[in-house]
Amino acid sequence: MGKELKGNMVIAQSGGPTVVINQSLVAAVTEARKHSRIKGIYGSLNGIKGILEERFTDLRRETYSTLKKVAFTPCAALGSVRKKPSEQECAEILRILQKYDVRFFFYIGGNDSAETANILSESAKKLNYEFRCFHIPKTIDNDLLENDHTPGYASAAKFVAMAVMGDNMDNISLPGVKVDIVMGRHAGFLVAASALARSSEDDGPHLIYFPERPFSKEQFLKDVEGVYSKLGRCLITVSEGIADEKGEAIASKFTKEVDTYGNVQLSGTGVLGDLLADMIKKELKVSRVRADTFGYLQRSFPSVFSEVDAKEAYEVGKLAVRYAVSTNIDGSIAIKRKPGKKYNAYFELVPLNKVARNTRNMPAKFINKQSNDVTPAFINYVKPLVGKLPEIGKLRYYPINKR
Amino acid sequence: MGKELKGNMVIAQSGGPTVVINQSLVAAVTEARKHSRIKGIYGSLNGIKGILEERFTDLRRETYSTLKKVAFTPCAALGSVRKKPSEQECAEILRILQKYDVRFFFYIGGNDSAETANILSESAKKLNYEFRCFHIPKTIDNDLLENDHTPGYASAAKFVAMAVMGDNMDNISLPGVKVDIVMGRHAGFLVAASALARSSEDDGPHLIYFPERPFSKEQFLKDVEGVYSKLGRCLITVSEGIADEKGEAIASKFTKEVDTYGNVQLSGTGVLGDLLADMIKKELKVSRVRADTFGYLQRSFPSVFSEVDAKEAYEVGKLAVRYAVSTNIDGSIAIKRKPGKKYNAYFELVPLNKVARNTRNMPAKFINKQSNDVTPAFINYVKPLVGKLPEIGKLRYYPINKR
Repeated sequence: MGKELKGNMVIAQSGGPTVVINQSLVAAVTEARKHSRIKGIYGSLNGIKGILEERFTDLRRETYSTLKKVAFTPCAALGSVRKKPSEQECAEILRILQKYDVRFFFYIGGNDSAETANILSESAKKLNYEFRCFHIPKTIDNDLLENDHTPGYASAAKFVAMAVMGDNMDNISLPGVKVDIVMGRHAGFLVAASALARSSEDDGPHLIYFPERPFSKEQFLKDVEGVYSKLGRCLITVSEGIADEKGEAIASKFTKEVDTYGNVQLSGTGVLGDLLADMIKKELKVSRVRADTFGYLQRSFPSVFSEVDAKEAYEVGKLAVRYAVSTNIDGSIAIKRKPGKKYNAYFELVPLNKVARNTRNMPAKFINKQSNDVTPAFINYVKPLVGKLPEIGKLRYYPINKR
Repeated sequence: MGKELKGNMVIAQSGGPTVVINQSLVAAVTEARKHSRIKGIYGSLNGIKGILEERFTDLRRETYSTLKKVAFTPCAALGSVRKKPSEQECAEILRILQKYDVRFFFYIGGNDSAETANILSESAKKLNYEFRCFHIPKTIDNDLLENDHTPGYASAAKFVAMAVMGDNMDNISLPGVKVDIVMGRHAGFLVAASALARSSEDDGPHLIYFPERPFSKEQFLKDVEGVYSKLGRCLITVSEGIADEKGEAIASKFTKEVDTYGNVQLSGTGVLGDLLADMIKKELKVSRVRADTFGYLQRSFPSVFSEVDAKEAYEVGKLAVRYAVSTNIDGSIAIKRKPGKKYNAYFELVPLNKVARNTRNMPAKFINKQSNDVTPAFINYVKPLVGKLPEIGKLRYYPINKR
């Protein structure tokens, strides 16, 4: 148990928002209020930027009614940030946390945030500053190491599946080739979830492209032609992160912007979809080709969320606080899954450095041999996370004899 | 009453899909089954294209359970088409309808479909072919003459409002300038609905641009700079149809494709959003500028619909059939609104030529003087159509004193 640590707590949110990220925040705050060793419950505004600027809000004063509404509201209620602190900034952050007698720190975010938490944890040890530092997982990309899946993913996956369900009906209504660009910088989990949109054999997406497999223009056009010549339409979902054989993102050839982690801007632009649509128009001589980029709606659309996801996002926030007050180790709360037919998740405290920095890709068993679709194993994996989807009704069609 | 017309019925769907277009279809089919003068109930596949190719499906054989599911499924269950028939094709359509003893024809669509119905109605009169020809309104653009609003609009408006609600939270989480491109070729009703996303004064959209007002790059940049310098963020909704002073669509400068009605392709491409984002980045030196184009999700996203819209879409389908069997005039069913504080809609049979071809714009009273926002009058107009929106929860913020 170590010594009985007492002091203030800071919680912050980082990286791209999700629809359930506030579930983790509200869970942590609600749990913290139950532990007398946690004195002030401070929210840092805009992640670690708020610490550096000493912009804290008193989360003890928020009412339960506000917190409940916030839990079901998309995007970071405390504000977020995309910032990798320098060594100097890390020292500064710790200095400020000490000044405010902060003994418990929780950072809700992805692998980049886990890395920040890890640096702070290590720095505190070197300084001999008694300090519990926790990472609470969050990413729609589902790419955190040590996790079966991550909070935020299933809700974004549900949005993508629903969007493609509707777009498939649109594509049946007005046939043509349609390209939908889905988020996911390096991992194809989100684009893969578009497969859930299918309810019958000729439903789209007919082709799915992953960042995990080198994108070949020739193979892509051949695939599209194959579907289009058979069905007279083709619905394709493509990860924004598709890359060529050298690993260079196809989209990055057209955009230059990078954040402080060195990540190229892939979202918030329609350039990849337009590029692929133009390619199909020109090379396959298909007249009606359209592209949509789902964009930020995937991570922010209100009231479309997975119930499993919302519950698990709450759980990891709650457990992080429980571990922080009951152990003397730092870590991240990982979601694991028990083998078996029935969905059965459990949570585990894992070391920060195991989740930090690196990311996880789609396992090979989830992508088909042609690299243009998912496998049944993936459907089994994702279905219980996303839960129930809207029912699609189709006419049966009873042809009238020609006269 | 005219003579007691008996024979088969054909129903078809045309133009861009909506989330409630099948409500009208199912209503017409359900109503038709109640009238013994209507013999066969045929669905033409892909609008008038299906008539020309004699591809009909027997809608009498569909079960109520199928029809009920179809009513709540987005996009044209019979398939749609974008086709303006030539004079020769109109004659051919009538010849085929006569061959199949079709005496009742219902075309669900926008102003282009009303025009087609009008041509068929006039041609039948010239041929002395006793024939009831009805247009059933549908368009997310809300631009039909004679109508207070059109089926499909309120559901698309709800989607846009929800998307912008989420995106506003995203923009608060990670501040920057965000541009959202909303459908609406000539009418700004849909982009205007983004105003419903606001729940407090500094919520986005902070600026709204309409196709009804000439787009000035200089004024646009000035507007954006004004908001950004005040709030440190700016969320802008822009109609895909914004045009310069000569009426040339800004997007059309970058795309060449037109359909057979001479409409330029504005959707299914991210080019306008990217153009505006680049402009802001370069001219205002804002580093974080993103653009999303909501695209086909606005007209096809399943399970997000307005209840008022679904009911009214059902009503116009039902009434079209009732009028067709009880009058000897052709027409379109228009939705009107009684004046007064409480929302009170009613339906009226209007002549086809009054709805055909031309479109309606946002009335001047719905756009503010600066041409960059809606007025309270518009909010009063649109709120009862869209209905309840998700509740957004925000922290109250209680700053911690600096130490």
